[in-house]
Amino acid sequence: MTDTPREIEALIDLMSRLPGLGPRSARRAVLALLKKRAGLMAPLAQAMATVALNARDCRLCGNIGTEDICPVCNDPRRATGEICVVQDVADLWAMERGGAFRGRYHVLGGTLSALDAIGPEELHIPDLLARVSDEGITEVILALNATVDGQTTAHYIADALAPLNVQISTLAQGVPIGGELDYLDDGTIGAALRARRRI
Amino acid sequence: MTDTPREIEALIDLMSRLPGLGPRSARRAVLALLKKRAGLMAPLAQAMATVALNARDCRLCGNIGTEDICPVCNDPRRATGEICVVQDVADLWAMERGGAFRGRYHVLGGTLSALDAIGPEELHIPDLLARVSDEGITEVILALNATVDGQTTAHYIADALAPLNVQISTLAQGVPIGGELDYLDDGTIGAALRARRRI
Repeated sequence: MTDTPREIEALIDLMSRLPGLGPRSARRAVLALLKKRAGLMAPLAQAMATVALNARDCRLCGNIGTEDICPVCNDPRRATGEICVVQDVADLWAMERGGAFRGRYHVLGGTLSALDAIGPEELHIPDLLARVSDEGITEVILALNATVDGQTTAHYIADALAPLNVQISTLAQGVPIGGELDYLDDGTIGAALRARRRI
Repeated sequence: MTDTPREIEALIDLMSRLPGLGPRSARRAVLALLKKRAGLMAPLAQAMATVALNARDCRLCGNIGTEDICPVCNDPRRATGEICVVQDVADLWAMERGGAFRGRYHVLGGTLSALDAIGPEELHIPDLLARVSDEGITEVILALNATVDGQTTAHYIADALAPLNVQISTLAQGVPIGGELDYLDDGTIGAALRARRRI
């Protein structure tokens, strides 16, 4: 049996490590690339090499950009005294897409986990405390995922911030815009009921 | 609102053109790459550039490899007098994985389609007829998909081969190995019944 060339197998193997792609779909993706070598594969390889070379973590907040300090940290208009703590760069991007938050961010890069030996140092929590003091922060918004890990981490950060005389808040829980009660889980309905407001 | 850097957006846009990846999953894949810039992103960009540069279509059968003539066409042991006609390189790879076929291939690269102006020339059917004469082929196996387009193309090729005194065959249709009757469509069960054999 003659196999696919070694270089192509190596590419399929690397592609299959991307989230959402298994061995079969990676093979399909590579085949699509092979059919559009000039139109898609070469530009994609080039774009990926450029980003791999130029991308860097913002040394203040952990956002990923192409500069040492990201555009959000570089923009003086975003020195609102608010820091939004997120778990991941994806969450920061999601917040930015929403466009509702005008302050700055602090990306943890994960959640506390004794099993995986991820402690406060790995999540840059000491850096966060230093930023709160140094940048004259008045409010820290904990925008962590509503999972057990996320909420454990949020509690830890809230405790660590307690001595610093800063307001601590978290995102509201409730019915999503356009959400139908019938399809919501009981926990969300309970939270929305407890946080009900007069109209 | 500050957006993700231009280079990263360009990469997400290119990734989202791969089959199986939409805009959201492309964003997620790029984010995973950004987190493993040295370990995954740089090697992937490198592997993709290598393949984009080195991959070429075999000028005899249309298989994709790194040489002008693919390993199957280059292997004298595969001059069995049989040619297997497949729609796509993916089908050739699937046949090779199976390891049951010892002859050579002819990749059409699609199916006949009046709507998309894909005629016999685009599918290299004249090349196939020339190969049958030149290479002393005794049997042409039409391993095309069991779809309307695939079967129309198979009929066309069978008609074109008719004057050439060559045996024409197609893959058997029936119950897949390990298949359960209960889950099979009626068409397959009907085909399997019509092609039943004595034991």
